Amino acid sequence: MASKNKLSLAIDLGGTSAKMALIDTEGAIHHRWSLPTDIRDQGRYIVSNLIQSIHEQLTILDLDLLDIKGIGMGTPGIVLADGSVKGAYNLNWATAFPVKESFNLSLPLPFYLTNDANAAALGEQWLGAGAGHQSLVMVTLGTGIGGGIVSGGRLIEGSWGSAGEIGHLTIDTSRTYRCTCGKYGCLESVASATGLVNLLDHYAQESIVSSELLKDYRSGAMIDAKQIINAAKSGDLLALQIFDEFSHYLALACSHIANILNPELILIGGGVSMAGEFLIHAIKEKYLNYVYPPIKEQTQIALANLGNDAGLIGAAALVIRNN
Amino acid sequence: MASKNKLSLAIDLGGTSAKMALIDTEGAIHHRWSLPTDIRDQGRYIVSNLIQSIHEQLTILDLDLLDIKGIGMGTPGIVLADGSVKGAYNLNWATAFPVKESFNLSLPLPFYLTNDANAAALGEQWLGAGAGHQSLVMVTLGTGIGGGIVSGGRLIEGSWGSAGEIGHLTIDTSRTYRCTCGKYGCLESVASATGLVNLLDHYAQESIVSSELLKDYRSGAMIDAKQIINAAKSGDLLALQIFDEFSHYLALACSHIANILNPELILIGGGVSMAGEFLIHAIKEKYLNYVYPPIKEQTQIALANLGNDAGLIGAAALVIRNN
Repeated sequence: MASKNKLSLAIDLGGTSAKMALIDTEGAIHHRWSLPTDIRDQGRYIVSNLIQSIHEQLTILDLDLLDIKGIGMGTPGIVLADGSVKGAYNLNWATAFPVKESFNLSLPLPFYLTNDANAAALGEQWLGAGAGHQSLVMVTLGTGIGGGIVSGGRLIEGSWGSAGEIGHLTIDTSRTYRCTCGKYGCLESVASATGLVNLLDHYAQESIVSSELLKDYRSGAMIDAKQIINAAKSGDLLALQIFDEFSHYLALACSHIANILNPELILIGGGVSMAGEFLIHAIKEKYLNYVYPPIKEQTQIALANLGNDAGLIGAAALVIRNN
Repeated sequence: MASKNKLSLAIDLGGTSAKMALIDTEGAIHHRWSLPTDIRDQGRYIVSNLIQSIHEQLTILDLDLLDIKGIGMGTPGIVLADGSVKGAYNLNWATAFPVKESFNLSLPLPFYLTNDANAAALGEQWLGAGAGHQSLVMVTLGTGIGGGIVSGGRLIEGSWGSAGEIGHLTIDTSRTYRCTCGKYGCLESVASATGLVNLLDHYAQESIVSSELLKDYRSGAMIDAKQIINAAKSGDLLALQIFDEFSHYLALACSHIANILNPELILIGGGVSMAGEFLIHAIKEKYLNYVYPPIKEQTQIALANLGNDAGLIGAAALVIRNN
């Protein structure tokens, strides 16, 4: 098999499971599988389980290592220069775990590792909403908020692998919920799925608007981000008030990204981006008031479109761009 | 003369004058001169005057073009991909002026052009406070606020040359002075020399503290940024209140830079940075509350140290790194 036709092995590691796939140089997924993430004992089994699973799948598929161009992987946490990962609390990797070294010792294949948000940014840039663009920032809205930066076709990982920490921009300098990182006022605390519920808790205290959402809240119902967004879409007054503030924070953060990096695109992805164009429209409207006027027409905000596959596709991109 | 010993011709173009120098590969300045900037008639004479001055100086110095490795230049405004410059209002280049093309037509030498803030960042990275570091952001505090970004040893110029617009981060979402860019709440409107005077105008309205600065202000004296800083240093209560808010805004902006880019250094330069360690200390103290905790110890804030030569040194760096 000619080298250019070899497959890349992509891994998108998460706190619950690892998604894995064999992906060709055009980005087509030839085979995919997943593996539960065993986070016991400081996550010491995670990498060896991944390696064992790769050997098993290659055997099942009658492939050997010569058929594989390399391994690309996106991981939660901070990727250090030596390929170890720290601060991945959902994996129980609080201190540095030697991910790259473990792969290198067990599999004689090129191994490329980056943060999961960076992988998603690369994936969108290769085959998603950012295809054809050389610079973009991907903002992932889920339980938390992640960010990945591609500038001039290259990942910006920061001096210690911590670039793109969009979720921890201090954006709410007044009310200031405490974030999981320990700091107050983080974007994540007011503009993630968690943030929407924080804002509901706040506004519901003293709200006097006529609102079904408010009635449900006061009746003791557990309300999640999706319900708040759906209520806003259907015109619920309290939900609209929350959504207005939520989109203000996102717009402000996008303007900071634009003013600092001037990328072609800021892509909004993650579970909360299921709100779709309703969300993009709300962000854009406010963004135009906050962004440096000469770049208003340049740095555009749009929805990501690879969904859950962005990380896998990006992990494969890591292999392909390095070969 | 061996190629590596050739000199670079550096130009730091400003609204009042252009500073020019011949600089060797070690960064030593061998000869320097300056030229008034003639901004009449949409700045159409600026580039031809520079070129004429270069020919004259080379003749005086008995050098010819073969002795010159190339020309590096920092300019106000936005540098477009084709080497034209727009938005340089202090040069009267509102629409795109073909700077690179003009040089190429008149001087058969490699020509490299970047924004003046980027040039200053490169200069500090080469021979200034950033020497030995691969990533830094330079924030220049003067009448306005400029920014230049070096990441992984490379300038980040943005898709349309507009990266690093630190001065136009929307940082004051409450009081919101109007900035020269037309937008409200820009960092520049509250944290430049102009911003210090804006804050004085604001606080002096209703202040009841005992303050010499307030007395001077109310007596109708024209007070500038330097006087406000000196008053703060000597403990004047009104000046300290202003300085506290001023440094809060700078700290917040530095935290945004750190969270997005995670550079090794954020360097503070420009005229207002004459406030020295008094300023750095005030920024750092607040910055630690706003920056993502894991990078607190990583991304450091420090004074730039090349002063007015940063742009010239950086212009020479442009030539050297491209040869």
